[in-house]
Amino acid sequence: MHVLIIGAAGMVGRKLTAALLEAGGIGDRAIDHMTLADIVAPEAPLHAIPTVPVAADLSLPGVAQALVADRPDVIFHLAAIVSGEAEADFDKGYAINLDGTRQLLEAIRQESIQEHYRPRLVFTSSIAVFGEPLPPAIPDDMAHTPLTSYGTQKAICELLLADYSRRGFVDGIGIRLPTIVVRPGKPNKAASGFFSGIIREPLNGMEAVLPVDDSVRHWFASPRAAIGFLLHAATLDTTLLGQRRTLTMPGLSATIAEEIAALERFGGPAATRLIRREPDKTIARIVAGWPQNFDTRRARELGFVAETSFDDIVRAHIEDELGGKLPG
Amino acid sequence: MHVLIIGAAGMVGRKLTAALLEAGGIGDRAIDHMTLADIVAPEAPLHAIPTVPVAADLSLPGVAQALVADRPDVIFHLAAIVSGEAEADFDKGYAINLDGTRQLLEAIRQESIQEHYRPRLVFTSSIAVFGEPLPPAIPDDMAHTPLTSYGTQKAICELLLADYSRRGFVDGIGIRLPTIVVRPGKPNKAASGFFSGIIREPLNGMEAVLPVDDSVRHWFASPRAAIGFLLHAATLDTTLLGQRRTLTMPGLSATIAEEIAALERFGGPAATRLIRREPDKTIARIVAGWPQNFDTRRARELGFVAETSFDDIVRAHIEDELGGKLPG
Repeated sequence: MHVLIIGAAGMVGRKLTAALLEAGGIGDRAIDHMTLADIVAPEAPLHAIPTVPVAADLSLPGVAQALVADRPDVIFHLAAIVSGEAEADFDKGYAINLDGTRQLLEAIRQESIQEHYRPRLVFTSSIAVFGEPLPPAIPDDMAHTPLTSYGTQKAICELLLADYSRRGFVDGIGIRLPTIVVRPGKPNKAASGFFSGIIREPLNGMEAVLPVDDSVRHWFASPRAAIGFLLHAATLDTTLLGQRRTLTMPGLSATIAEEIAALERFGGPAATRLIRREPDKTIARIVAGWPQNFDTRRARELGFVAETSFDDIVRAHIEDELGGKLPG
Repeated sequence: MHVLIIGAAGMVGRKLTAALLEAGGIGDRAIDHMTLADIVAPEAPLHAIPTVPVAADLSLPGVAQALVADRPDVIFHLAAIVSGEAEADFDKGYAINLDGTRQLLEAIRQESIQEHYRPRLVFTSSIAVFGEPLPPAIPDDMAHTPLTSYGTQKAICELLLADYSRRGFVDGIGIRLPTIVVRPGKPNKAASGFFSGIIREPLNGMEAVLPVDDSVRHWFASPRAAIGFLLHAATLDTTLLGQRRTLTMPGLSATIAEEIAALERFGGPAATRLIRREPDKTIARIVAGWPQNFDTRRARELGFVAETSFDDIVRAHIEDELGGKLPG
């Protein structure tokens, strides 16, 4: 089978590529070759399964058609302009996050009109589709009242995915990811960056800034869990989804205090002492608007699995990024 | 002030035009002139207030820009491809119902970027945004799981309306209309046509076919109530809406039996005898999937008013379409 990953150069895309190459297949079908697309051509890993890197801006005319012209069996669509940039650049956010996804769906439909074609499309949506008023645990079927253009674009794509699937043009499934921690790599400027930073940096002997109160509660899953969601979504029996093609993925609802306690169990007081509390009202206000907990029974009943303690999340980071042991 | 009506040639558009000309203004502002746009140029009524008819296909490039180039203060956007046609012609439905509305919003935004401009935009959405599983009374904030491409397109436009309003480009409000009865004019082939037919035809001494059981329950408002919704939406203080810019309009939940009882109170047994029961399984199945009742407290608290009995709906028809008395 042929697998196409759009957004393959990002953190999740690279981990997904590696996981697919290691597995060698999806479900009981072997992977013959993979196409790795991103705005800049991703690195093609050396592996027995050939991978073709492609530089592709999905918002440009013809690009989606070219990507589906050889009829990939499974398509992972991970590409997006992130929340802050979509808010700052209205046109770019709509061009990539809405038009790009719509052009992908439309290119698949045009292929399906020519000759039978109905690929599995796994689309990463976001909990940003939900807005105020937020109940204590947000159910899967809560109305979408996004508070950002990014959330609006993701909510629209969920509707398109459902309609194109209902009409039989594509076999779509959308998954709303929790905040991914611990993200590997350097600190970044995303408002959510500190959630990863206060684990990653101290375990590496470096200082990390905590801009919010220890009582702040948020919604987490590890990169390993995210890859598990994507792989499960690629093989799930989608007749079980009915018309509701997108699901909120399971995650861990935890406070910063619980996160720090887990850090201390692995890194000791030497690690937690590296967290410098530096309250930032702007970040605190942004984070206060984010959802804290979800009722994900539907996804769990369909077999999606996430961590159930912050210890599991820290352990996944140490195993997957630090070779199973702490530095120094 | 300048008023633009898009979709002015339809039943609701013509009644809205007449109501605005009769009122001479919206709120406390006089109307200087009106632009009446539709796919075929509407008839321009003879009136002291000038009306300019325009043939405009909103889905074509440049058309939306031309319509907003002279910066109308209030825009009513009623134009749509109806449900059956949007399901039969996938491309046309998306072109008119999604792209047309998006291009209107985008044209307004481009005007607003050049120089301050933030018109009131009243958009007619639909209860077709709601799909299964339907609770006994659908709340205003129920999740959108439309079962048709039409419902999908309307749900997407609601999201766009909210985002463009949140960003300050437009002052948008969406209203989801009940099934309008009694529609004046000839019988049509819409699956919902019989709801009007079994009142309109018998009051006119003609036979009408009833394809569903008397126990069928549905959700109704008169054309007069619909015009009232539109006019109220044009002046409502939209700061009361928050991020939820679209509301389900109030209506009457009633059974066919209640509808026929109201007919008999006005037209006597001579009228009800003209209803011929001819069960149609296809229509019965379609109607069974439609919502039957809504919790519209939010709209009612904001001052939207609909009929509370089928007698009121029949009386509105007799007063507005039959000159206040029954023929013959």
